[in-house]
Amino acid sequence: MAGSTLGTIFKITTWGESHGRGIGVVIDGCPAGVALKEEDIQIYLNRRKPGQSQYTTPRKEDDSVEILSGVFGGRTTGCPISLLVLNENQLSRDYSEIAGYYRPGHADFTFDEKYGFRDYRGGGRSSGRETIGRVAAGAVAAKILEQLGITVMAYTKSIGPVTIQSFDPETITNNPLYMPDADAAKQAQNYLNDCMRKQDSSGGIIECRISGMPTGIGDPVFEKLDANLAKAVLSVGAVKGFEIGDGFAAATLRGSVNNDSFYYDAQGNVKKRTNHSGGVLGGISDGDTIVFRAAIKPTPSISSQQNTVKKSGEDISVSIKGRHDPVIVPRAVVVVESMAALTVLDALMLNMTANIQGICDFYHK
Amino acid sequence: MAGSTLGTIFKITTWGESHGRGIGVVIDGCPAGVALKEEDIQIYLNRRKPGQSQYTTPRKEDDSVEILSGVFGGRTTGCPISLLVLNENQLSRDYSEIAGYYRPGHADFTFDEKYGFRDYRGGGRSSGRETIGRVAAGAVAAKILEQLGITVMAYTKSIGPVTIQSFDPETITNNPLYMPDADAAKQAQNYLNDCMRKQDSSGGIIECRISGMPTGIGDPVFEKLDANLAKAVLSVGAVKGFEIGDGFAAATLRGSVNNDSFYYDAQGNVKKRTNHSGGVLGGISDGDTIVFRAAIKPTPSISSQQNTVKKSGEDISVSIKGRHDPVIVPRAVVVVESMAALTVLDALMLNMTANIQGICDFYHK
Amino acid sequence: MAGSTLGTIFKITTWGESHGRGIGVVIDGCPAGVALKEEDIQIYLNRRKPGQSQYTTPRKEDDSVEILSGVFGGRTTGCPISLLVLNENQLSRDYSEIAGYYRPGHADFTFDEKYGFRDYRGGGRSSGRETIGRVAAGAVAAKILEQLGITVMAYTKSIGPVTIQSFDPETITNNPLYMPDADAAKQAQNYLNDCMRKQDSSGGIIECRISGMPTGIGDPVFEKLDANLAKAVLSVGAVKGFEIGDGFAAATLRGSVNNDSFYYDAQGNVKKRTNHSGGVLGGISDGDTIVFRAAIKPTPSISSQQNTVKKSGEDISVSIKGRHDPVIVPRAVVVVESMAALTVLDALMLNMTANIQGICDFYHK
Amino acid sequence: MAGSTLGTIFKITTWGESHGRGIGVVIDGCPAGVALKEEDIQIYLNRRKPGQSQYTTPRKEDDSVEILSGVFGGRTTGCPISLLVLNENQLSRDYSEIAGYYRPGHADFTFDEKYGFRDYRGGGRSSGRETIGRVAAGAVAAKILEQLGITVMAYTKSIGPVTIQSFDPETITNNPLYMPDADAAKQAQNYLNDCMRKQDSSGGIIECRISGMPTGIGDPVFEKLDANLAKAVLSVGAVKGFEIGDGFAAATLRGSVNNDSFYYDAQGNVKKRTNHSGGVLGGISDGDTIVFRAAIKPTPSISSQQNTVKKSGEDISVSIKGRHDPVIVPRAVVVVESMAALTVLDALMLNMTANIQGICDFYHK
Repeated sequence: MAGSTLGTIFKITTWGESHGRGIGVVIDGCPAGVALKEEDIQIYLNRRKPGQSQYTTPRKEDDSVEILSGVFGGRTTGCPISLLVLNENQLSRDYSEIAGYYRPGHADFTFDEKYGFRDYRGGGRSSGRETIGRVAAGAVAAKILEQLGITVMAYTKSIGPVTIQSFDPETITNNPLYMPDADAAKQAQNYLNDCMRKQDSSGGIIECRISGMPTGIGDPVFEKLDANLAKAVLSVGAVKGFEIGDGFAAATLRGSVNNDSFYYDAQGNVKKRTNHSGGVLGGISDGDTIVFRAAIKPTPSISSQQNTVKKSGEDISVSIKGRHDPVIVPRAVVVVESMAALTVLDALMLNMTANIQGICDFYHK
Repeated sequence: MAGSTLGTIFKITTWGESHGRGIGVVIDGCPAGVALKEEDIQIYLNRRKPGQSQYTTPRKEDDSVEILSGVFGGRTTGCPISLLVLNENQLSRDYSEIAGYYRPGHADFTFDEKYGFRDYRGGGRSSGRETIGRVAAGAVAAKILEQLGITVMAYTKSIGPVTIQSFDPETITNNPLYMPDADAAKQAQNYLNDCMRKQDSSGGIIECRISGMPTGIGDPVFEKLDANLAKAVLSVGAVKGFEIGDGFAAATLRGSVNNDSFYYDAQGNVKKRTNHSGGVLGGISDGDTIVFRAAIKPTPSISSQQNTVKKSGEDISVSIKGRHDPVIVPRAVVVVESMAALTVLDALMLNMTANIQGICDFYHK
Repeated sequence: MAGSTLGTIFKITTWGESHGRGIGVVIDGCPAGVALKEEDIQIYLNRRKPGQSQYTTPRKEDDSVEILSGVFGGRTTGCPISLLVLNENQLSRDYSEIAGYYRPGHADFTFDEKYGFRDYRGGGRSSGRETIGRVAAGAVAAKILEQLGITVMAYTKSIGPVTIQSFDPETITNNPLYMPDADAAKQAQNYLNDCMRKQDSSGGIIECRISGMPTGIGDPVFEKLDANLAKAVLSVGAVKGFEIGDGFAAATLRGSVNNDSFYYDAQGNVKKRTNHSGGVLGGISDGDTIVFRAAIKPTPSISSQQNTVKKSGEDISVSIKGRHDPVIVPRAVVVVESMAALTVLDALMLNMTANIQGICDFYHK
Repeated sequence: MAGSTLGTIFKITTWGESHGRGIGVVIDGCPAGVALKEEDIQIYLNRRKPGQSQYTTPRKEDDSVEILSGVFGGRTTGCPISLLVLNENQLSRDYSEIAGYYRPGHADFTFDEKYGFRDYRGGGRSSGRETIGRVAAGAVAAKILEQLGITVMAYTKSIGPVTIQSFDPETITNNPLYMPDADAAKQAQNYLNDCMRKQDSSGGIIECRISGMPTGIGDPVFEKLDANLAKAVLSVGAVKGFEIGDGFAAATLRGSVNNDSFYYDAQGNVKKRTNHSGGVLGGISDGDTIVFRAAIKPTPSISSQQNTVKKSGEDISVSIKGRHDPVIVPRAVVVVESMAALTVLDALMLNMTANIQGICDFYHK
């Protein structure tokens, strides 16, 4: 099955395993004329790189991106953009032990069941390194969105039981957990320190805001904008839930509370007094900020003892060796942001044929 | 934009508005040889019909389905199956008032923004009647899943603040809210009675269990089984959140708790001691029951007074006339079940080419 | 397998068998705001109706189309347009004989091999009636193309050995064979009369011209405009070949002859002195008239005696009963025209995101 | 627009320009467990390499392929296979002259019209080097087809006016033109020598035979096997026509001649006495050898003088410099073969869900 391609017009195809030759992505359908250089992409990749703080794995990976095609004279040509990140030290370790058993919470077992065997080196295709392709493509999408006045911003909303109580965008990049609340960030670090002492890991919640969205983006039935955001975000490993606007809380509300009233602002534009909807009504953007959240499970690789099975038929107890992230939420922030950028851009491009007038105007008739 | 088609192999295309000539679906890619008659589909449609209890709109709609193609001699032929439900009394009302303003919580405004105008009669394409096509197709998918030993069962987990405390599958169809806990069902009815007295509405949560799933279904990257379930479920109007397994709760857990241990059962099969994963690991089914939840917002149509705007430029206050569902959760149960069935069946069909051995066996070489 | 959907943005899904309840098509992705009424479509359907002359089957089929959805107040809404043509007298005949053997040149055998059985009534899904959905959708596409100044015109280039020697567009609709050369039309009728006397049938060639095409439409690699035209046209039953511009003749030419020279016309536009290319260079429209041809095989249903097999295991000799078209070319003209219109429209819509400037202009930033 | 992806299950995405960093392809949906090494692919690439004879460009390009992902322990893993061919000497020439004018018969003009500018170095994305990705992927497809007993074999049927009169498969690789008729090959070489002396080029026809095909492959409506072959073959640059079986000749035949009679062979299998159909009936394989032809136009790059225009607004006369293939037919043989292999394999994979019995058997229920 072909499951490594996403998007209808702005279409990306990712490839690569954690310990193969490299990781890459082909972006097809990128409009011509976008100024693009490797640094534009590298900035995004650096945000997901390991080793940024004590709360991420200290593994050394430079993740330098190279543009192999689709850019000429500093601008995209409209032809596929192939981006490559070579893996370093991919032969450096002995994976023979991990090859024989199934790590709890990982996809080792399901890969074997599906394909008959698996590339067991460091997670293979289901490694977190798979997200490199997503982020590289997301950086390109974000460049285009910027030209349309659209900003996608994700951050950490909670780590384990610690949730932000305030929102200061400046603070996000001032703490290693990408939280917009300095106090919560401190508490969360304390919580994580405790997890690490206990050889355990933590989950958390990422929130994402898309501002500057035009109205009318997304489709009414299966291709609802929120449905596509949900798919894009749930397709990231470790994500176990998605909600938009009030999300699960809306289930407990009454209609009189949950409905957002419309009004005309001073410029005569239709606005909503509240944003319970999260910026989408009937699958279509309503002009308000799109707000959604993703639930991230705790890192499954922990060094405390766990029960599992060997492929050869025995029950065993294991401790996952290696240096793993005690929490992947901070590094996943830019991944969620990228998935949102890709989804929104594709919807914007698809929307251009919604009305015959727009088509006629385009072709000057 | 073409947003009314879902699926890669088992592909459905729905059409129709609430007050047009009818509602329909074309199922393309249904395998030949499936025994199918109209009653198989009607049973599912009856579960979403209005007028089943005091908690659903008392509108009279028979929703009789007709098979127009793709079935010959009582069996599917492998060619597209066209299913039609004619609308009754579609000309019976004056919609001129609703035509002029934007109902809060509805897609009136976003449709106008996207398309320039809208079919304002009773919600048009964004009406709940749009789900008829989904349910009709879901009934066909469920027939096929049955032959593979797979059962999809959805039910109401909560109504407003009232959540089930026990699970008795027999109870589900014994109360008008489709809750598997008789006590909770009673409390929920009391809660709804209160909502209705206050001319208000309620949201709730639907849970769905898919049992009998083979291992290995779903894909590792963008086409993760849970990502596709999320999209399918979020594509249903009024759904604001999706979670699988422990979902948002997993964000608060530690890895040592959230990981499911593997063991060998008496028959030598790999099993998990717990099911925090919700039956999916790395986007691929792990053989356990798939468990997910959908958050449903309160019905936006309420008769209590609300502020909104007229298209012509004035702020107004309105009370939505007509007889609406005080809660759509009970009627949405079969819709969620249908979306799950469609998603799982498509994934099962796509999975058949995962391994060269399976292909060679199929072609007898 | 789902093989009844065509197109990426302007997407059609057809359904129906020759002797089921009816034939239909769902058009998804049609832009909102297109004026559309049933007569617009009926005009196209009438061109493929049987009984127009002695050279088409005298069967009586009205093929009246009904718009079931997607049009409100005389304009398309942007939501799926469901079109229905009910079959008449679909129970009128005994098909038990044909059920038992495989008609030479038909798909009876291959359907049985693929699906295990078939709807044997009058060809089922592989009947020529399947093209009704194509033509109905093609009529809608043509309406939109008209607004963009694009005209698609097909006609008969040859019938058996008789090929047109001149081209007068006025003549096309003045003879029952839709040939633009009155003399050739007469010779072709003589030829067909002879075929009919001998209980035999004839093939022919349809040529199609698309004028008014903007430059730049189509994609450089797999989605070349000519490749998509080829697929669309070859997907019509009985078509055995496709060529664009000089086509197969180009294989015999030298580059110095086949290359079209560019020059600037008086208005300063780049033009070609010749059109060997057929209006497409590198898969992209070059602004010249697109010219392609489709080879149509002779009608396989003939009443002269043929050898074949019964499904039950015997070799037999048969004479196909019923009143069949001695040549399907004239009725296929509008089908080819429709497939071209659908293909070109989808390419035009896809082209709108080719350049970032166009996207920015669209969103007024 | 995203036009560099082909296939539904066995899906390939190509990228790269003639003078960028390299050319590549990502194969997604390849079944796990296929033995694959770089040599398997290199053999195919060597067949399209330049410099094989005096009738191909003497440019030196090694076109060494590297497998970057998707293969582990010598077998495919079911994950995307990324194949890379680095370009050599990509900076070696001054393209400033070619940058300013439009070469006749090339896509320079249409690229500029579509995208606003182009990568003018050696043809960029529309260079013949783009086919490297197709051939690399085709080699993988062919490996799988081999396991299913299916062989795809293409060869040169004609060069300019010289057509084969006999068919000896052994001869194909014994002459530089890949013709199965040694006498014709000699005449064709004489013809080409004359073309080259006149600084001109030649077209030709490639024929392809697919043997060992099971019956029942392909779909009845838009996804007819022959329609997909047509699209795949026409998507190769320079192809101007496609025909299957009798093709254009069928247009001149009568039904009594063109119909293939069925009979039972000694083993009780249904066979056809002739193969006018070319192995496909109603879009579905009939068990006979699939035979199709592709018309290739003469190489547009010729060194004799041609008229054209500069982008800056002047009419000029040019002679295309550089050393070009006087005919691309011999090098295109393996490209056509690859496109056929890719198309047939995807259809075989899609066919596995045609009947419920096959699905139930697969899942052992």
